[in-house]
Amino acid sequence: MIITLKNDSEEKQLKNLMDWINSLGLQTHLVKGENSTVLGLVGDTSRVDIGLLNSLDIVDTVTRIQEPYKNANRKLHPDDTIVDVSGHCFGGINFQLIAGPCSVESEEQVLTIARAVKKSGATLLRGGAFKPRTSPYAFQGLRDKGLEILLHAKKETGMPIVTEIMNINHLPLFEDVDVIQVGARNMQNFELLKELGKTRKPILLKRGLANTIEEWLMSAEYIMSEGNTQVILCERGIRTFEPYTRNTLDLSAIPILKEKTHLPVIVDPSHASGLARLVAPMSLAAVGAGADGLIIEVHNDPPHALCDGAQSLRPEQFDELVKRLDVMLSVVSKVREK
Amino acid sequence: MIITLKNDSEEKQLKNLMDWINSLGLQTHLVKGENSTVLGLVGDTSRVDIGLLNSLDIVDTVTRIQEPYKNANRKLHPDDTIVDVSGHCFGGINFQLIAGPCSVESEEQVLTIARAVKKSGATLLRGGAFKPRTSPYAFQGLRDKGLEILLHAKKETGMPIVTEIMNINHLPLFEDVDVIQVGARNMQNFELLKELGKTRKPILLKRGLANTIEEWLMSAEYIMSEGNTQVILCERGIRTFEPYTRNTLDLSAIPILKEKTHLPVIVDPSHASGLARLVAPMSLAAVGAGADGLIIEVHNDPPHALCDGAQSLRPEQFDELVKRLDVMLSVVSKVREK
Amino acid sequence: MIITLKNDSEEKQLKNLMDWINSLGLQTHLVKGENSTVLGLVGDTSRVDIGLLNSLDIVDTVTRIQEPYKNANRKLHPDDTIVDVSGHCFGGINFQLIAGPCSVESEEQVLTIARAVKKSGATLLRGGAFKPRTSPYAFQGLRDKGLEILLHAKKETGMPIVTEIMNINHLPLFEDVDVIQVGARNMQNFELLKELGKTRKPILLKRGLANTIEEWLMSAEYIMSEGNTQVILCERGIRTFEPYTRNTLDLSAIPILKEKTHLPVIVDPSHASGLARLVAPMSLAAVGAGADGLIIEVHNDPPHALCDGAQSLRPEQFDELVKRLDVMLSVVSKVREK
Amino acid sequence: MIITLKNDSEEKQLKNLMDWINSLGLQTHLVKGENSTVLGLVGDTSRVDIGLLNSLDIVDTVTRIQEPYKNANRKLHPDDTIVDVSGHCFGGINFQLIAGPCSVESEEQVLTIARAVKKSGATLLRGGAFKPRTSPYAFQGLRDKGLEILLHAKKETGMPIVTEIMNINHLPLFEDVDVIQVGARNMQNFELLKELGKTRKPILLKRGLANTIEEWLMSAEYIMSEGNTQVILCERGIRTFEPYTRNTLDLSAIPILKEKTHLPVIVDPSHASGLARLVAPMSLAAVGAGADGLIIEVHNDPPHALCDGAQSLRPEQFDELVKRLDVMLSVVSKVREK
Repeated sequence: MIITLKNDSEEKQLKNLMDWINSLGLQTHLVKGENSTVLGLVGDTSRVDIGLLNSLDIVDTVTRIQEPYKNANRKLHPDDTIVDVSGHCFGGINFQLIAGPCSVESEEQVLTIARAVKKSGATLLRGGAFKPRTSPYAFQGLRDKGLEILLHAKKETGMPIVTEIMNINHLPLFEDVDVIQVGARNMQNFELLKELGKTRKPILLKRGLANTIEEWLMSAEYIMSEGNTQVILCERGIRTFEPYTRNTLDLSAIPILKEKTHLPVIVDPSHASGLARLVAPMSLAAVGAGADGLIIEVHNDPPHALCDGAQSLRPEQFDELVKRLDVMLSVVSKVREK
Repeated sequence: MIITLKNDSEEKQLKNLMDWINSLGLQTHLVKGENSTVLGLVGDTSRVDIGLLNSLDIVDTVTRIQEPYKNANRKLHPDDTIVDVSGHCFGGINFQLIAGPCSVESEEQVLTIARAVKKSGATLLRGGAFKPRTSPYAFQGLRDKGLEILLHAKKETGMPIVTEIMNINHLPLFEDVDVIQVGARNMQNFELLKELGKTRKPILLKRGLANTIEEWLMSAEYIMSEGNTQVILCERGIRTFEPYTRNTLDLSAIPILKEKTHLPVIVDPSHASGLARLVAPMSLAAVGAGADGLIIEVHNDPPHALCDGAQSLRPEQFDELVKRLDVMLSVVSKVREK
Repeated sequence: MIITLKNDSEEKQLKNLMDWINSLGLQTHLVKGENSTVLGLVGDTSRVDIGLLNSLDIVDTVTRIQEPYKNANRKLHPDDTIVDVSGHCFGGINFQLIAGPCSVESEEQVLTIARAVKKSGATLLRGGAFKPRTSPYAFQGLRDKGLEILLHAKKETGMPIVTEIMNINHLPLFEDVDVIQVGARNMQNFELLKELGKTRKPILLKRGLANTIEEWLMSAEYIMSEGNTQVILCERGIRTFEPYTRNTLDLSAIPILKEKTHLPVIVDPSHASGLARLVAPMSLAAVGAGADGLIIEVHNDPPHALCDGAQSLRPEQFDELVKRLDVMLSVVSKVREK
Repeated sequence: MIITLKNDSEEKQLKNLMDWINSLGLQTHLVKGENSTVLGLVGDTSRVDIGLLNSLDIVDTVTRIQEPYKNANRKLHPDDTIVDVSGHCFGGINFQLIAGPCSVESEEQVLTIARAVKKSGATLLRGGAFKPRTSPYAFQGLRDKGLEILLHAKKETGMPIVTEIMNINHLPLFEDVDVIQVGARNMQNFELLKELGKTRKPILLKRGLANTIEEWLMSAEYIMSEGNTQVILCERGIRTFEPYTRNTLDLSAIPILKEKTHLPVIVDPSHASGLARLVAPMSLAAVGAGADGLIIEVHNDPPHALCDGAQSLRPEQFDELVKRLDVMLSVVSKVREK
């Protein structure tokens, strides 16, 4: 951590500051320049409050050098984390396809789609039982009834299921869910993250729609600091000024994350754009950027889906996409489980 | 709602679409132009799924004309809502000052600050017991112990208290809290909003750091649709590309909100910038823009505050600010309670 | 164009508005609903001033249905435009690689790089003679001397050259330049665009760093409306709140542009991220998303480049990348010129 | 400037780097920590290329401590710059009102408005002769004819005039213009800035719609480094994700600029929101935030203005606003010239 001091800071104030920093178990190094004096802090600065330092009269700016995340930091854990979901692995050279409907609507719907996407190559089944909707008047999901339908489909097809949690109190309902998803709007629901950190289930952590990569890793850190290291990150688009797409898929986040963290990173091309016809090109792009997998909405009857139908592929479109993905995977040295 | 159709849409598809819309109880009006055909929907379109319409083969674009919020909509409720907190009113010509420390640290700290800000003109006391922090390693608040300290200060000073909730399960602890705050990161924690809608307590709803005004009003709608109409909106800065300030305070949101909704709107100038020296100018600016009140961090010893010290005023700075505010309030025809 | 009227608008005002719209040669269609009255405008609305309509007392909102661009609009020109640069074609199934140094530094440097990238598969040579730099104290390019060096390299290698113009008055110097680049900062330098529209040279139009796709196409329209239809669009990243990358490469812009316009679209992965190690993954991603080509910075000695060295590949890295691109191109049905 | 080195950097590489930095006339200070090694650079680092440093194998991150602007930097020029326009002063305790139509339409229009706003308290007259428009099909201004009309109004009313330049080659036409405006879209038209730096005319430099405060000051630096120190900054809104307002007026930029620079700062509340009914509240807010003046669009017949009519006040609304501003100015210790 680097503290730049104001030009007019007094010797006594400076000494007080250095004494206080030393009392936190950190070393200080002072560098005096013509126009500015700089204080370097050496040691574990993750607990130092930047706000407090900034508020001191003699401080001009404070710059953190060390990343504030530890468990998620590749510097401290150089090897890729492999998240194993009933034998289906995320991370390393593995590439996984998660597919299924946006919302669970009926047993028949889920089973039909599950069988179709499994045949095409999907290894996990997704589906929303609890749906976060901007409007209280929109369809909110089948809730516990929806979870039952998903668990039935798991039993019938053998596919592990991925579904979203919105409320800590629903956790008991998720006992047989294989991967618990935290949606973009809950990425900084810290109370929820802490509870999920106490489980030992894989967590699919979506990026908040206006959150930086560092904040995202800090949310992973919330889960990991409670002991659960099974975190899969999911890029799903960020909010920008561009109105033609619902969100802007930030694919450069993938190679950046591959440097910063050892956690697997997948991409959701369906939610990012909100348009079914963008799913194929953005899926191919995600593979090119180095993603460890994709989570794709597939619906047997998109125009009548209860929500987000606009972004769902039909099963035959999904099948066609998987064929094209396979050629690309070889270029990025990834292997899709078959 | 206006649907623009693709040029190559077939008569039969169009008829199917119109029949389906009519079956929802809506009327349709067709306008054929040279390069485009437009379908106008008349009636209550708040339940129509734009995503579904967008996904239809024959649809080019869908534009909502009616606002999707009802309870919060000024068109349907022209008069200002007045939120009465133990006799202190928000909305209309009233102007309220909420002040207090960022975090509750000790009984002595809270009482000292409460007495000082009350003397200067604050009518409500704020203070964080549960603190949402980006890092799991940062101070998380005194939690239930902090709430006790706040309630003690309420008893001693007679000031109603405002404090943040982060977890539905903590609701019983908030029984004697006067105004429950929903923080920016929980603005779209819909499960929490629904529960708060079932209470009859005033809710201070902060704007999410990347949420539009419409989404913010939809979150108010979540609370109001459950029967709780006592919602106070609080602008606290949005996320932009500018790094010099932590967030960009969006003061133009105030006159916009005054048109769109009847709910009171206050401003938090402390969190927006993250810099104490910006609190005074941005407070004056907020009054100019038409705010119904301010919520300001005050600390008796800012450099040693456990969190966000950089953005707190000292009591004497707060006192000085209140004097300047009073002159400005006359220009905007607001009356500060004294 | 759709005009929503205020509820309290008078018949007389409405009649005046409709008469005025009719006088512009447009037809009007009135749709009266319960809560709102909507006026549809049919005809060529590209000259109607939305600002003016918005300012009328009786108008609530105005929504444009038709795209405001004509020459660039795929609806009016369904076939792909092919821009032919001395036999190297952009658009359709063609894929082109443009490569070269960020800044022209010396004849030897440019020739060495040009020969290397040509051998690896680049068909056009890029290089900056006039450099737009945020700081007046930074290296501003070799200017006319730099142009001479590029033209010499063109003669020696036979590669057409692409270089940026910053000033209308420099146009005579660009007589032998094959493709004139308009940089992000000049995307809305309308006076420059109009002058370039009067030439018959291919123009490489970069997206402004905070411009929407529609504004970008309107800038292409400025060039095309003067008679020059040879416009190549270049996505180079937009400004967001994410600090780890200099800009966020918006790859979803590619499939969107392929729908909206018939113009070729290439991607600059070097400037977007500002990091050499992101160039390869983002190039592969761009191909996946459907780009018609790439413009890549290559430097024989990146650490000593006079500007933007951090984002340049070494020739051997570029060579390696081209090999990987070829496998991907088959998946998207593109053919790289060899 | 602080360079953080990678953990695995070799001694020899480090020595090479330090030697090279020393050869630039800078001193280096090395601080070795447990997990990172940090190199501090002392001296004038404004010419050091951060991109180059970042590209070195041994470098992890580079952080600039010193601001890159000099002439515009308050640290080096503590006193407020006062820009004197024919006796009307910007900066210090002075407050100026600039008013006039968006576009110059006719002699009668300009004279009528000029006389009205002068009577209400405006000291300078604004009006657009050359208009930057997103669409080539929109009204582009009366151009040189418009300038003539403005100069005639100046002669008749004695008010100095402010008008925008879009093309270096038009500079001779601006000989009798008092303040030359650089619009948001040209804020980084560096060739234009350099030419304006060679004049001795006051320059009104608007902020680019997605530019940081630092970039804005660097553009001021372009003008100042050529010898012209008469720069007035103008905040006019930045681009965010919020669609209800055309741009988000960033009023916190004002107190930040007051710290960072000695140049005067005014606000344009008309362009920021694009809505006439927001001009009054945002003008009052700008005064509260500490602005040195306002530039406001006034039109005698807003609904028929040729451009941007939606954001213009009528003369009587402007008159009413000025009265309210006066009360507020006393609170911020500003004096409006009368």
